[in-house]
Amino acid sequence: MSKVESKAASSAGAPPQPGPHTEAADDDAQVGARLSAVRERMAGHDINVYLVPSADEHQNEYLPAHKQRRQAISGFTGSAGDVAVTPIEAHLFVDSRYHVQADLEVDPALIRVHKFGQAGEQELTEWLTAHEAEHGPLQVGYDPFLMSVRTVERLAGALQAEGSRLVPVTGNLVDAVWAERPAGPSRPIYALPDALTGEPVADKLARVRSAMAEAGADALVLTKLDEVAWLTNLRGGDVPYNPVFEAYLIVEPQRAICFTDDPLPQGVPGALEGQVAFAPYDALPDAMRGLVAGGRTVWLDPAGTTQGLQLLAQDARLVSRSPNPVVAMKAVKNPVEITVSRDAHLKAGAAKVRSFSQLAARLREGQRVSEADYADLLYEEYAREEGFSELSFTTIAAFGANGAIVHYGTPDARQELQPGEMLLVDSGVQILGATTDDTRTIAIGAPDAHQRERFTSVLRGHIRLALQIFPEGTTGQMLDALARSPLWNEGLDYGHGTGHGVGAYLNVHEGPQSISSRGTVPLEPGMIVSNEPGYYRTGWGGIRLENLYVVEEALGLPSHPGGKRWLRFSPLTAIPFDRTLVDWPRLTREEFQWLRDYHAWVEEQLAPRLDEPHRLWLHEACATPPAP
Amino acid sequence: MSKVESKAASSAGAPPQPGPHTEAADDDAQVGARLSAVRERMAGHDINVYLVPSADEHQNEYLPAHKQRRQAISGFTGSAGDVAVTPIEAHLFVDSRYHVQADLEVDPALIRVHKFGQAGEQELTEWLTAHEAEHGPLQVGYDPFLMSVRTVERLAGALQAEGSRLVPVTGNLVDAVWAERPAGPSRPIYALPDALTGEPVADKLARVRSAMAEAGADALVLTKLDEVAWLTNLRGGDVPYNPVFEAYLIVEPQRAICFTDDPLPQGVPGALEGQVAFAPYDALPDAMRGLVAGGRTVWLDPAGTTQGLQLLAQDARLVSRSPNPVVAMKAVKNPVEITVSRDAHLKAGAAKVRSFSQLAARLREGQRVSEADYADLLYEEYAREEGFSELSFTTIAAFGANGAIVHYGTPDARQELQPGEMLLVDSGVQILGATTDDTRTIAIGAPDAHQRERFTSVLRGHIRLALQIFPEGTTGQMLDALARSPLWNEGLDYGHGTGHGVGAYLNVHEGPQSISSRGTVPLEPGMIVSNEPGYYRTGWGGIRLENLYVVEEALGLPSHPGGKRWLRFSPLTAIPFDRTLVDWPRLTREEFQWLRDYHAWVEEQLAPRLDEPHRLWLHEACATPPAP
Repeated sequence: MSKVESKAASSAGAPPQPGPHTEAADDDAQVGARLSAVRERMAGHDINVYLVPSADEHQNEYLPAHKQRRQAISGFTGSAGDVAVTPIEAHLFVDSRYHVQADLEVDPALIRVHKFGQAGEQELTEWLTAHEAEHGPLQVGYDPFLMSVRTVERLAGALQAEGSRLVPVTGNLVDAVWAERPAGPSRPIYALPDALTGEPVADKLARVRSAMAEAGADALVLTKLDEVAWLTNLRGGDVPYNPVFEAYLIVEPQRAICFTDDPLPQGVPGALEGQVAFAPYDALPDAMRGLVAGGRTVWLDPAGTTQGLQLLAQDARLVSRSPNPVVAMKAVKNPVEITVSRDAHLKAGAAKVRSFSQLAARLREGQRVSEADYADLLYEEYAREEGFSELSFTTIAAFGANGAIVHYGTPDARQELQPGEMLLVDSGVQILGATTDDTRTIAIGAPDAHQRERFTSVLRGHIRLALQIFPEGTTGQMLDALARSPLWNEGLDYGHGTGHGVGAYLNVHEGPQSISSRGTVPLEPGMIVSNEPGYYRTGWGGIRLENLYVVEEALGLPSHPGGKRWLRFSPLTAIPFDRTLVDWPRLTREEFQWLRDYHAWVEEQLAPRLDEPHRLWLHEACATPPAP
Repeated sequence: MSKVESKAASSAGAPPQPGPHTEAADDDAQVGARLSAVRERMAGHDINVYLVPSADEHQNEYLPAHKQRRQAISGFTGSAGDVAVTPIEAHLFVDSRYHVQADLEVDPALIRVHKFGQAGEQELTEWLTAHEAEHGPLQVGYDPFLMSVRTVERLAGALQAEGSRLVPVTGNLVDAVWAERPAGPSRPIYALPDALTGEPVADKLARVRSAMAEAGADALVLTKLDEVAWLTNLRGGDVPYNPVFEAYLIVEPQRAICFTDDPLPQGVPGALEGQVAFAPYDALPDAMRGLVAGGRTVWLDPAGTTQGLQLLAQDARLVSRSPNPVVAMKAVKNPVEITVSRDAHLKAGAAKVRSFSQLAARLREGQRVSEADYADLLYEEYAREEGFSELSFTTIAAFGANGAIVHYGTPDARQELQPGEMLLVDSGVQILGATTDDTRTIAIGAPDAHQRERFTSVLRGHIRLALQIFPEGTTGQMLDALARSPLWNEGLDYGHGTGHGVGAYLNVHEGPQSISSRGTVPLEPGMIVSNEPGYYRTGWGGIRLENLYVVEEALGLPSHPGGKRWLRFSPLTAIPFDRTLVDWPRLTREEFQWLRDYHAWVEEQLAPRLDEPHRLWLHEACATPPAP
């Protein structure tokens, strides 16, 4: 899933397809009542603006239902968009991905939507400056546990009048008035065996403590849910698509404490005895104050630190290195994680091949198949695989022109797949200790020359990057243009990064590596990255071709003149590219060879996992014309 | 000329080939006497270490002879290497490029050479720390006008003992004892007509003053010689290879003052009357003090500011934006500069073609030709071109294994060109308002398969970058891997950047753009950059293929989805690549087409400029086999 579009996909707090997380949308009456109740409380706090951001206490991509406060106070379900409530108005600020969706979801009688990016429309900071100019000094209340330190600095910069200030308000005002608030964490935490994680908690803690000693830190505070899950080898079910649980973790030289209210089956604390102790979620502030009172040096990663945590630690000696040591450790997968991931990708690949094979059969038989039908079919095939847990994000099944909509999230039951256009399928699963993510674009019926031309350009970009060997020290920023090169030469481009990191049975978007203009981190052996160039044209459709690869050392080459190791991308994803969309003569010899070898590998890996009809479909899908 | 190697090439303060700048090396007796005299003066200043860096007051790549103090005090002629003098010892610190050269040039009885990079060897800062540990607090004297602010900070960090300190010493101690010091500036300054620069001084000053007003600066102090030359449209002859003159420039809203001791022909001040006034070089400190006393806000570019200037401005209100506005203005060439440059490149290309044609004739006739003979021949052909002023750097004419020596500088009169190996020729000229720089590697005799294989890989890298279209905003960092891609896939790489900026009748290395891992500046239309991938193997030889290109808008393409303009590289250099070294079937169709089109363009451009025998040679050199 492309990094820009991920935010869009996460907009579906209520994915209407088979899956474990569904909930009802809030209606306008509820929103109106909550806005009134918040305003009453604002008066009690002497504030004339109250901010409700999208993010929660853990600054993660996906939020549990009971933390979706911005949705509760506005009705807007998009992943990004902040609300500002004043005594008589309410404002929602959304970027271009959500201009249409916000209008559909928000009652204009209650909330004014600011579509920034459009002429004359303001961002939140601009609105604050303008509102202050009009109304005089502002007392802007906010929940400090929902805002990063950086965001608070940015907002403070928008307030310029003498007497204006940001007021951290204790206790979230939306929570206080949210009568229908979903229940909090209720799914039990479970432990992953070392056979899936490849590294016992004791060893992970030892590595983290060694990094802490080097940085001179007495305590490391982790707030991101995937970091807590990785370090404790625990998983949960509090958030859709990510098997994480709501928790903070404090690591000290002699102990580690996990703050969570999730149910803990007896075996879990037992397995971690002597390594990790447990405490209630709300005990974190006192623990932070204890560290400060004890004169400890506290390590807070600026990227994961909210203003609330910063305030709790304000009298402590601080280590503020970015990022914290878990980020780099988690990004480099160990041999066990890679083995588990390879197997999971073959399962996900087999399921996707079966879904394509069955789709072809249904269309051949003249059945009506909608986007939603296909997404259901795919879900069923995924669910057949042993170890399947859930999707790793809302499946994007976008037909025809829908493929060009950057934030196309919910497969449409009314959108029928018909010959002459393409279907873009971007999906992934959480399965047996691993996370998958892949995108294929397939022709429905016989493709035309233009579709084949564009598809081939995107595929050439994918292959150029996939076959690239590079020396260690190379960053994603330096590789991004390889995937864009054939497109750029035709005056084409895509508005998202080429690749992102992926977790091991964790988040489908994981840092610090990135193959994009922002990818300043060198790629290292063991890192998993996506390779997903694309092409989109409004009204016509979209193409995206995504595999996951694991970076590994390339052996058997001459020594690098600078003594560096050579690295390469080893494929995890095993799914054929739609050969009917490939304009084979346009491939260079190197590109042709890569595609031929890749298809041969896909067939070899998947055939033993498939029944006869699907195996035949695969064999045909993997066929390659003779070399040019 | 590759950026790493440039430093090496500049080592020849005394290029032994035809050219305007030659001088005798200092002998050991002179060095010994100067060291003794410096030590006497150190005692008078109460210092127990005196530092003599490579750089001069203007921090430029090439130094005039009378500023080559590090050479005068050590005998070492390399471009990089600092000296530390103590009351009883002297130390020279050189990196791996100069380990051999330093041993050859330095008398070990006088100076200990520290070859850092080798096990157990120290850099200057490490030595300072160790020396302090051994001898107690150090008083480290230095000339603050020779050290950048950043260097002084780095050195200060190396001194850790209570009582140790860096002591800025007024008056350079080497100058004071350098009896044989060459005379200072003596070559007259001259003005370039607008027909060559494309922009009158008044317009340039207006643009600079507008940037100053925006930054809130009352005065801009320029120290880099090429910046002063660009802004005043003046040139001089104080430095080898760069047509610049020793000067500072202060720009204020109502006046600009150029501080220089160079002879000023009557016409020069006349041409700039009302725009630029002149003052003696030594009047700068008083002028700086005047700005400070007058309460002016002074703009100092940290990259060009020495500690001495910083001290003069220490009580001023400072604007320290990096870089100063001239850097970006100078980098983007105007249409006149580009037209002048295109013509100069055709002249330089015609000269190089004649040199290759004559070299082939001489070898065919069985004549003995050395590296130096070829360099002389090339110089003669360059000198025939109208407007020729001088080389833009020491010609690198490296035969066989010499091609692998990264800092190969001086063509060897004893090194004969013989069949079976390759000749790498990296050269350029200052000609009629423009600066050129190109590299060709040619086979002497019939090349073998291995030479052709490596040459073709380097050429493919060159072509991949040369044909790449890219959206505005793309940095050199993002393009660098395109040129390395074919090499990397064979386990090969080169230890220098892929491309650097080039001045307009100024320095052959010019910022801020760079196609390398450090290239964080977006490429813009009008920027000139080199494209020079290479391959080097010790004992075997080297290959480098370098053209200059000007960035220009690419028209006739689809709109970029982000609304950006499309850019491309338009070739300036017109010289065929040695077709006998091209393994044609290995080129992709795109690469083949580019090379065919480029050779056709070269022949079309150069043929009218050549006599019959050279035109025939060119015709054969530009022939292309039928398309694959």
